[in-house]
Amino acid sequence: MKKYLILALLLIFSLQNFAKDGYELWLDYRPIENSIMRSEADQLFSGIFFFGKNPTYEAIEKELQLAAPKMTGKAPVFSSERLNQTQIWLGTREELAQVLGLQNQIDIRNLGQDGYWMGPVVFQGKTYFTIVGNRPVGVLYGVFDWLKSLQSGSFDLNKVKMESPKIQLRMLNHWDNLDRTVERGYAGFSIWDWHRLPGYIDPRYIDYARANASIGINAVSLTNVNANARILTSDFMKKAMVLADIFRPYGIKVFLTARFSAPIEIGGLKTADPLDPEVIAFWKKKTDEMYQHIPDFGGYLVKANSEGQPGPHEYQRTHAEGANMLAAALAPHGGVLIWRAFVYSHEIDEDRHKQANLEFVPLDGKFRENVIIQVKNGAIDFQPREPFHPLFGAVKQTNLGVEFQITQEYLGQATQLVFLSPMWEEVLRSKTFRPTPTSTVAGIVDGSDSGQRLTLMAGVSNIGTDRNWTGHLFGQANWYSFGRLTWDPYLSSEQIAEEWTKLTFGQNPENLVKIKEIMLDSHEAAVNYMTPLGLHHIMGWDHHYGPGPWVTGGRADWTALYYHRADSLGIGFDRTFTGSKALEQYAPEIIRAWSDSEQIPEKYLLWFHHLSWDYTMKSGKTLWKEIGLHYDQGVKSARKMKSTWETLNGAIDPVQYSHVSQLLEIQVQEAEWWRNACLLYFQSISKRPFPSEIEQPEGDLEYYKSLRFPTAPGIRPKW
Amino acid sequence: MKKYLILALLLIFSLQNFAKDGYELWLDYRPIENSIMRSEADQLFSGIFFFGKNPTYEAIEKELQLAAPKMTGKAPVFSSERLNQTQIWLGTREELAQVLGLQNQIDIRNLGQDGYWMGPVVFQGKTYFTIVGNRPVGVLYGVFDWLKSLQSGSFDLNKVKMESPKIQLRMLNHWDNLDRTVERGYAGFSIWDWHRLPGYIDPRYIDYARANASIGINAVSLTNVNANARILTSDFMKKAMVLADIFRPYGIKVFLTARFSAPIEIGGLKTADPLDPEVIAFWKKKTDEMYQHIPDFGGYLVKANSEGQPGPHEYQRTHAEGANMLAAALAPHGGVLIWRAFVYSHEIDEDRHKQANLEFVPLDGKFRENVIIQVKNGAIDFQPREPFHPLFGAVKQTNLGVEFQITQEYLGQATQLVFLSPMWEEVLRSKTFRPTPTSTVAGIVDGSDSGQRLTLMAGVSNIGTDRNWTGHLFGQANWYSFGRLTWDPYLSSEQIAEEWTKLTFGQNPENLVKIKEIMLDSHEAAVNYMTPLGLHHIMGWDHHYGPGPWVTGGRADWTALYYHRADSLGIGFDRTFTGSKALEQYAPEIIRAWSDSEQIPEKYLLWFHHLSWDYTMKSGKTLWKEIGLHYDQGVKSARKMKSTWETLNGAIDPVQYSHVSQLLEIQVQEAEWWRNACLLYFQSISKRPFPSEIEQPEGDLEYYKSLRFPTAPGIRPKW
Repeated sequence: MKKYLILALLLIFSLQNFAKDGYELWLDYRPIENSIMRSEADQLFSGIFFFGKNPTYEAIEKELQLAAPKMTGKAPVFSSERLNQTQIWLGTREELAQVLGLQNQIDIRNLGQDGYWMGPVVFQGKTYFTIVGNRPVGVLYGVFDWLKSLQSGSFDLNKVKMESPKIQLRMLNHWDNLDRTVERGYAGFSIWDWHRLPGYIDPRYIDYARANASIGINAVSLTNVNANARILTSDFMKKAMVLADIFRPYGIKVFLTARFSAPIEIGGLKTADPLDPEVIAFWKKKTDEMYQHIPDFGGYLVKANSEGQPGPHEYQRTHAEGANMLAAALAPHGGVLIWRAFVYSHEIDEDRHKQANLEFVPLDGKFRENVIIQVKNGAIDFQPREPFHPLFGAVKQTNLGVEFQITQEYLGQATQLVFLSPMWEEVLRSKTFRPTPTSTVAGIVDGSDSGQRLTLMAGVSNIGTDRNWTGHLFGQANWYSFGRLTWDPYLSSEQIAEEWTKLTFGQNPENLVKIKEIMLDSHEAAVNYMTPLGLHHIMGWDHHYGPGPWVTGGRADWTALYYHRADSLGIGFDRTFTGSKALEQYAPEIIRAWSDSEQIPEKYLLWFHHLSWDYTMKSGKTLWKEIGLHYDQGVKSARKMKSTWETLNGAIDPVQYSHVSQLLEIQVQEAEWWRNACLLYFQSISKRPFPSEIEQPEGDLEYYKSLRFPTAPGIRPKW
Repeated sequence: MKKYLILALLLIFSLQNFAKDGYELWLDYRPIENSIMRSEADQLFSGIFFFGKNPTYEAIEKELQLAAPKMTGKAPVFSSERLNQTQIWLGTREELAQVLGLQNQIDIRNLGQDGYWMGPVVFQGKTYFTIVGNRPVGVLYGVFDWLKSLQSGSFDLNKVKMESPKIQLRMLNHWDNLDRTVERGYAGFSIWDWHRLPGYIDPRYIDYARANASIGINAVSLTNVNANARILTSDFMKKAMVLADIFRPYGIKVFLTARFSAPIEIGGLKTADPLDPEVIAFWKKKTDEMYQHIPDFGGYLVKANSEGQPGPHEYQRTHAEGANMLAAALAPHGGVLIWRAFVYSHEIDEDRHKQANLEFVPLDGKFRENVIIQVKNGAIDFQPREPFHPLFGAVKQTNLGVEFQITQEYLGQATQLVFLSPMWEEVLRSKTFRPTPTSTVAGIVDGSDSGQRLTLMAGVSNIGTDRNWTGHLFGQANWYSFGRLTWDPYLSSEQIAEEWTKLTFGQNPENLVKIKEIMLDSHEAAVNYMTPLGLHHIMGWDHHYGPGPWVTGGRADWTALYYHRADSLGIGFDRTFTGSKALEQYAPEIIRAWSDSEQIPEKYLLWFHHLSWDYTMKSGKTLWKEIGLHYDQGVKSARKMKSTWETLNGAIDPVQYSHVSQLLEIQVQEAEWWRNACLLYFQSISKRPFPSEIEQPEGDLEYYKSLRFPTAPGIRPKW
């Protein structure tokens, strides 16, 4: 029998080698590597008992049917009796009340809505491995965690594990248009096939739900924040309803983006004024209809008065008046209104950096309870590195959620391996010094510092129709990492990288070290070859692909020159009290430290200071030279990532190897392109000699400026 | 050992059940069902010897490495010695000259460039199973055929098989735009990721080449006939070059669409006049550059002076002058110029049906040798049923290729199962009576009747980024069927359906009967519920999704009214001598028979005749009643397809079952929609009572007219 199994497992391995197209994500169940663990799993899978019956348990059953044969070579056995052959118990605290000890029950109750307890339960002398939640979805989360521990070799049959998420709304934001294009999407097109909905259910929808549930994501907004009102018509509600029905067993709520002018566009009204009775009635009726279709509809996500999107300002109303009107329509149903803080009027501000605080701080305390303001991690726009957004800590009575961008708009799109977790970790751990001296962004967002009850972490999806979902295999690591951070924003990037790598490439320790090194170095590498030392927003026009430090024309705060402010004397955006004063929006501790060019961390230097090309850096080198060395270091790091990857040839699946290998080759070229284009451009301004330590570019500045990318993906469609 | 194998095979089966997403197409190798055949295959795979070394043999080796473990549970063994352990011999006639008998050599030589010979060869007392071609690609075709015979249970170790294709250019036409939208594409978006080319090779490109080679397709035009001149720039040539390099080992040549105005758009010229020396020089230089990148570049495909595309008419030049100029640029390199006959000037003709003949018959004999005119199967535009195009048989000294549409623009797009092979078979077997009394369309296209040396069958691709390539699983059958017909246009639809069904669903005879029945009934069903009795072009505006017999406005020959001509007296387009006289473009035998409404096959009746609603049909019923019954029969057939499919539940893979099942549910609804909308509309014109035998529609005509489909796919992008 054992021989059969080994042969069978070998075959499975060889077969799976043909199918490593990435579709399975981190749920690509494989034979369990550790033999003791495999026999434990074998036994556990042989008797599974559910204490209840509901669609979530059915989803768990399906997951186990999928996982067990791949992990152990045998189908799982579901028991209809609680005792006898049973090995695993699955159910809610209430369902298990009679078999759980009092302390266990208290422990579990404290884990809240989504938490789970996992461990051995002794009952009538026999031990059952038990996964319990307060709701079925907690059990689901527990099962996924258990499977993950088997795949990554960390399962301990005798250990008790308790987990509960720190954030309430763990949310993906799709920027998917109804025509299936995806704004800033680099993995093909939208997975939502609106045309064939509601009649045809793409199996992908279910796998999407599984993947999200397995990392704790429990909310998704299906549509672009640059919204199309049509999504709120009855026809589309019926389509969205089907998706909501599919996601429900996986604990995922559907949100939709609401276009503020929808009352005009689909309601036949002449105004969208949030105080107009007809407008109020429109939204109430529309929202009631929504809840008839989707009883657990999550709510609306709104981008208003930003980049040309309509909003309350057209009617001389505030963001609070706009948001509260929609929130009032949602409130009777328990819905949440998410309002983006990424606002700036179409007139050019002195410094776009300041606008969110200028708009929202005065409104502090004016938003309804079921409103949450979704704030990007930084004040500009998902740049390779930004200091944390000054709105964190600046309001006291406003729910704030954080918005990260998983799709790599400014970080190499789908041709570069950039593991974003270290960047998010840097933001989450940033000290805000408000409301308390030890406050961090994470502490504000999860409510522990801010005291807010409604909590949200949103990530702009990097998911598309590509077979591997994310275009670049390592894009999956960013999706995974985002999910894990929504569950626990205090996790380290290293831990997350380790988890994902084991699930994706197996447990070989040498491979693990190399892959983790590549991942953990990748963000700093990208910052170096794109925007070192606090530079930002110097990418290509419109498509944002590649460097464009020369970009000018059109709206000033969409140009590169606006942000780097390079002139013959120096470079950088003075946001201190001598400049735009944006720095003053932070806590006094930060203002003090960062207004001093000697004290501010050099990674933020040019974000806040305009300095002479000859300014002396901590290294003793001039700023001009230091910029050059950072760009060059970025290229070197990219090359090192590539050479490290090459040592994995033969040690990992060849399809995975070749996929990443080709993309790393492109990444090195793009890193060189960034370095050469930026240094040649800044040299044309600084008039300083090209640093001799650095390889001389092959082309000249005019060559780099002449490049055009008509097929660059992810462009916003023309409405 | 046997037990291992059985267990292993069982496991493979169970694993594969999770992966039936359709990506593998008809190359989804599975354990060989017949045990004798499996042990034969087992032995053959154990010693494979190639008589030479080249990229095509490497492709064969990879294919066998993929197939053998899945078919037999064991990896294939490649021998480095011709004798000893060897079981299979693979090579060209020249390579095998010393081991083949004289008669074999003559036989093989006669199979031409792409043919292959397969069978036992006895050498020094031992028998080798041998696959030989005149070129390596012939060996590849033979190997695919051999694998197919193992999968479908028809392999005979002792039989000699000789095959050679009847058509030279067996070609897919992609209507893929550079922004990855696909005109009339219903399977997602373009698989050509121009942005990431040339650096990143999607494994899909290779699988695409494998699939095509396995059915004999040897030419692909990558880009939309509504062309973008940018594809001819150096940047894009480098991208196309990579695809050509990938396809070359699989015997596939790359063609590109040439926009006639490219000299203006990318050449900086003021004219595209085909007789202008600068224009001639532009195309020569451009073409030379193309061949530097792609030495075996196939040539250009051109849509000119049609639906707004630029062409020679702008300069008062003929199609021949336009085509010959491009052909002259290609000739030195052995390239082919394909010129579409789907032309009609933007001014409205009396009857669009006539225009191709009006334009091309006078040019007969004026085209260069390396020009081929690509003629749609019918004179209008890929309608559910069209009589064959009158150009077939009307010219004597012009190479004619036929163009079919695999993508189901007018045949249910990606929500309907419509097996197109019977429709193509009907066209190919149509008697043209010219040039000889027994001539058929197939005989003209393959040169046997026409004597033309350059032969072409083109199909507009239904391939996209959907995981299963074609959106609807049965769309794969149309791709497959098209390929098989390019190889042999005399194959029967039944044979093709049987082959594909076995490769896709296995050999279970009961399943086979049912699935074949569904497939073979599906086209007639669609004709009935869409456009029975010769009706045509009454679909929805622009997106062509669903019925639109009321469509009017804009260009007359883009409306439905232009084609059905229904009025209070009758319905149908009079194309006889009393009408547009389009019928006169056919051979006298056809004119005689079809000009008589009693003699013409009723399936073409309203295509050529305008008849009273009360006209008596062969059934004795009135035309009005017969129209109604045909529509209703279509709905009944669709329902029968669905109920037959439902009996397969549990008998086939559940993922495949559910996928098709959902789509058949939609198909029934769409069939009812077509029937109801068309009958209500025609009733509003005929003023006859709604036939009492037919279910009364739920909605009224206004309801059907009010339906809008903003997310219907495949729309031509706005340039």
